[in-house]
Amino acid sequence: MRVLDYSKELIARQSVTPADAGCQEWMIEKLAALGFTIERMPAGGVENFWAVHGSEGPVFCFAGHTDVVPTGPLDAWHSDPFVPIIRDGNLYGRGAADMKGSLAAMLVATEDFLRESPDHSGRIAFLITSDEEGVATHGTRHVVEQLHCRGERIDYCLVGEPSSEESLADVVKNGRRGSLNGTLRILGVQGHVAYPEKADNPIHRVLPALQELVGREWDAGSPDFPPTRLQISNIHAGTGATNVIPGVLELQFNFRFSPASSVEDLQAAVQEILDRKQLRYELDWQFSGPPFYTAPGKLLDAVQTGITEIMGRPAKLSTGGGTSDGRFIALLGGEVVELGPCNASIHKIDEHVALADLERLPQVYLASLRALFASGGV
Amino acid sequence: MRVLDYSKELIARQSVTPADAGCQEWMIEKLAALGFTIERMPAGGVENFWAVHGSEGPVFCFAGHTDVVPTGPLDAWHSDPFVPIIRDGNLYGRGAADMKGSLAAMLVATEDFLRESPDHSGRIAFLITSDEEGVATHGTRHVVEQLHCRGERIDYCLVGEPSSEESLADVVKNGRRGSLNGTLRILGVQGHVAYPEKADNPIHRVLPALQELVGREWDAGSPDFPPTRLQISNIHAGTGATNVIPGVLELQFNFRFSPASSVEDLQAAVQEILDRKQLRYELDWQFSGPPFYTAPGKLLDAVQTGITEIMGRPAKLSTGGGTSDGRFIALLGGEVVELGPCNASIHKIDEHVALADLERLPQVYLASLRALFASGGV
Repeated sequence: MRVLDYSKELIARQSVTPADAGCQEWMIEKLAALGFTIERMPAGGVENFWAVHGSEGPVFCFAGHTDVVPTGPLDAWHSDPFVPIIRDGNLYGRGAADMKGSLAAMLVATEDFLRESPDHSGRIAFLITSDEEGVATHGTRHVVEQLHCRGERIDYCLVGEPSSEESLADVVKNGRRGSLNGTLRILGVQGHVAYPEKADNPIHRVLPALQELVGREWDAGSPDFPPTRLQISNIHAGTGATNVIPGVLELQFNFRFSPASSVEDLQAAVQEILDRKQLRYELDWQFSGPPFYTAPGKLLDAVQTGITEIMGRPAKLSTGGGTSDGRFIALLGGEVVELGPCNASIHKIDEHVALADLERLPQVYLASLRALFASGGV
Repeated sequence: MRVLDYSKELIARQSVTPADAGCQEWMIEKLAALGFTIERMPAGGVENFWAVHGSEGPVFCFAGHTDVVPTGPLDAWHSDPFVPIIRDGNLYGRGAADMKGSLAAMLVATEDFLRESPDHSGRIAFLITSDEEGVATHGTRHVVEQLHCRGERIDYCLVGEPSSEESLADVVKNGRRGSLNGTLRILGVQGHVAYPEKADNPIHRVLPALQELVGREWDAGSPDFPPTRLQISNIHAGTGATNVIPGVLELQFNFRFSPASSVEDLQAAVQEILDRKQLRYELDWQFSGPPFYTAPGKLLDAVQTGITEIMGRPAKLSTGGGTSDGRFIALLGGEVVELGPCNASIHKIDEHVALADLERLPQVYLASLRALFASGGV
């Protein structure tokens, strides 16, 4: 089983983010042998590459990352996370599901497709980074910026993120909410707890505003998107002493927002609340990514055709969950979907992918490729 | 001026809490020369002593501490905090107001009183510790426990805490609120900010309970005490990551409570709120001291007589502000008041006491002693 061998090759390389540990050179060798033109695009110590097969026409791109999240406590694993091993019908190892199994499946599907359609129309590309699990500033974002500057576009993109929930390809992500972070400092006046009238406790003062922030309905979402949600992720105030009223409270919050709210809407609404509660505050915003959405069209049709052919039923579409590199690729204007293995074990101890899924994933990718190219999309 | 010389002797000894740095040996030498019986009561590395003049009858006690709070940034001081220096009519140095000036005044008043009344009725005592500014477990609390075990009592106690606000002896503290600390852990479920439905954000969950806690009227106080107040001093939650909902929130709060509320009342009320809000929590209580109150009686009468004689007006009584060692001494059942210099500069950079106040403080103490002993109280 090629996809198993390829997965093992990648898992054995200890590419804890942002390290690539030779994964990309190994992939490049495979792709170069297939006739791909390779362009390495390292940035900020991060390995990235862009590889293209075909000389002109619309671009279909497989996108993914070679980096993996840290292992967590090694002694909690039942086997070495970087020694791929089969147990009970599963392949175990860090990255097995997120997303070295997907990369292996992309390679196998591409090899098979090129064998049967060496003179395909359009272009097939790979956009691979080793900076997806970390800060993600020197990875896909960088490559997309370079392509954008050169006037290139990606018409269709399949990101190998583990989108499946209960069974392989039961869910395809055709969009993601946007993400917006806020850092808020509430300014009070420090003092002694015995003299609260001489102090201004920022913990007490901020409570009504926080109640309103966490209780508010920001929008109702849309048929394609869940409603915008706010979560406070960090809150800190206090000197450590039990007899001191702190002078400052700091907190961070995050919006996952649907296209029904704009960044400007959300920022204005937060400020309105803070101002109305008459808080003295400092507020900084970090915009982490806009929402993206791929409406039903050629790519989704092709992917659903491929999934139905192999799995006997189409996938459910979802725009839930976290951000992914899809947000950057979508900026190039094409259709973007995410399709990969089951995500139940990702980022956890004993990450794994079922062998049965690993065997069918290249088949799903290949069937989707066939359908897309046959549709005249590429 | 003896009181100035004595103050300088004490300030020059760098007794940052819980160090005593020889202050007590210097005081002991003075007291022994006056005929006091000295009992050293060190505990847990802390120096304490108990000194008594006279062999039987009611006990009047001067109480105080030789330790001082840390200096803070030395370069912010206009002169070395441990080199007592006079500038612009003030004596500067760490401890000048809190409370080495008071200790010096107690010694001078005692010397003068014993010179004029060598055969006084009752007993005069000194209870001195070097653990008041710190954790305060091995200081006055320890000495009081020892005295209690031996069946001894303190009938009248003047604590030299800097009680004055605008002018010397304008305020006498005749009680203090109690202090009760709570440490609360709110248990949630950690998760990803993009999947709040799979997590349980303890920051969001605790807000309604905190609103109620900080908004509640615990009691109305009493003619002698301000109402009970709650202050949240520390609040912490968050992993540092902006995309993680934390699993736990920790906070600390403090009650300063009047005798109108008992410790049990307050604990029950807090638990009732947390339970009613259906929080999962862990709550630990640290009882820092009960309230104490000295009703008008022989000691307050004597002190007001003394103050009026020297200052031309009586003091205002107050039970506000923080705790003091008075809370421990009051457990011995006697009358306890606090009377000392102006507190505006205590614990701050450039701590000082006005020379005019330093000169009159022993006179106030002496006049109070005379009045108390003349009243037949001792």
